[in-house]
Amino acid sequence: MKHKIVDEAERLFWKYGVKSVTLDDISRRLGISKKTLYQHFSDKEDLVYQVVVNHFNAKKENVNCHKIDAHNAVDAMLMLSVMVRKYADSNNPNLLFDIERHYPKAWEEYRKYKEEFVFASIIENLEWGIRDGLYRDDINVEVLARLRLESMHLAMDEAVFPHDRFGLTDIQIELLHHFLRGMLTEKGFTIYNQFNHEL
Amino acid sequence: MKHKIVDEAERLFWKYGVKSVTLDDISRRLGISKKTLYQHFSDKEDLVYQVVVNHFNAKKENVNCHKIDAHNAVDAMLMLSVMVRKYADSNNPNLLFDIERHYPKAWEEYRKYKEEFVFASIIENLEWGIRDGLYRDDINVEVLARLRLESMHLAMDEAVFPHDRFGLTDIQIELLHHFLRGMLTEKGFTIYNQFNHEL
Repeated sequence: MKHKIVDEAERLFWKYGVKSVTLDDISRRLGISKKTLYQHFSDKEDLVYQVVVNHFNAKKENVNCHKIDAHNAVDAMLMLSVMVRKYADSNNPNLLFDIERHYPKAWEEYRKYKEEFVFASIIENLEWGIRDGLYRDDINVEVLARLRLESMHLAMDEAVFPHDRFGLTDIQIELLHHFLRGMLTEKGFTIYNQFNHEL
Repeated sequence: MKHKIVDEAERLFWKYGVKSVTLDDISRRLGISKKTLYQHFSDKEDLVYQVVVNHFNAKKENVNCHKIDAHNAVDAMLMLSVMVRKYADSNNPNLLFDIERHYPKAWEEYRKYKEEFVFASIIENLEWGIRDGLYRDDINVEVLARLRLESMHLAMDEAVFPHDRFGLTDIQIELLHHFLRGMLTEKGFTIYNQFNHEL
């Protein structure tokens, strides 16, 4: 039941925003009593937190699976752009800002996901690419990993890319390819052209 | 005399920070009376403003001169990395934060310089490179120009790149080269390798 509630809550949050969905809405949708709901979650803040934890755990698994499938670092990076397109609907920057403002515990989970898991994944990818001679060996891994992490945020920043003029998915993919190309060696470009066409 | 005061004030601001330099300090250094100083500037805020305006006008001229010297868009971009090294001392991020906090009129001048002059220069460079076939013609010029503008800021952000662990000049040059390489075509790479070796 807990899992079912988390799933339904996540669906409603994406659709209507975190603020406007109440615990009443969720229990009504699931045809359960609020008492049942409170058996699993102490309050809305707790539910939002569980939704965020669940969401990022699923994302981590997804990223890790892609890593196993990937033939090389370039391929792994290109797969991310497939994922970006695939999950385009669930990329709601307003939702993130809502969470940042009103749900500090859930926000902390997001921050941790980004700073720990995403950052470590980027570093790992860059080192993999350098080892195989696909990325230049003179790049400063930590500087570029930080750049990548920050530009993922930048894409969602309404002040930099107003949503009425820029499509979020397009920006993310543009930035991802530009980031990747900026590191490629000649050998890397051969792989890039090959795998990019396969997508 | 006005020019002399502005120059001396700028020198002192770089050296000691804007906050800690008083109008008394400046007039003492120049051996002039405070009355003379007030003939040219209504107050310290006004002086800081004039220093900033003067600084960015000089920078604009400098950038424009380099543009005239440059053989192509790649060369022009690479010249910026020479400028970054040359003016490394006058890259004081703390100074900028000081101005942001305490001198709104001067800060507005900085913001305008960045948003108007720098942004337009980047756009111009990208279009030049595309026209000559040195940059890919499938880049989104506005998205990448915004990325470039924001990463110039990012380099100075203490939260992203703590100053005790990252050298500002190194970061700026790393980001500049990565940005440039991310746009290059094969023809662009030939030019890049040629001009980069000449520096």
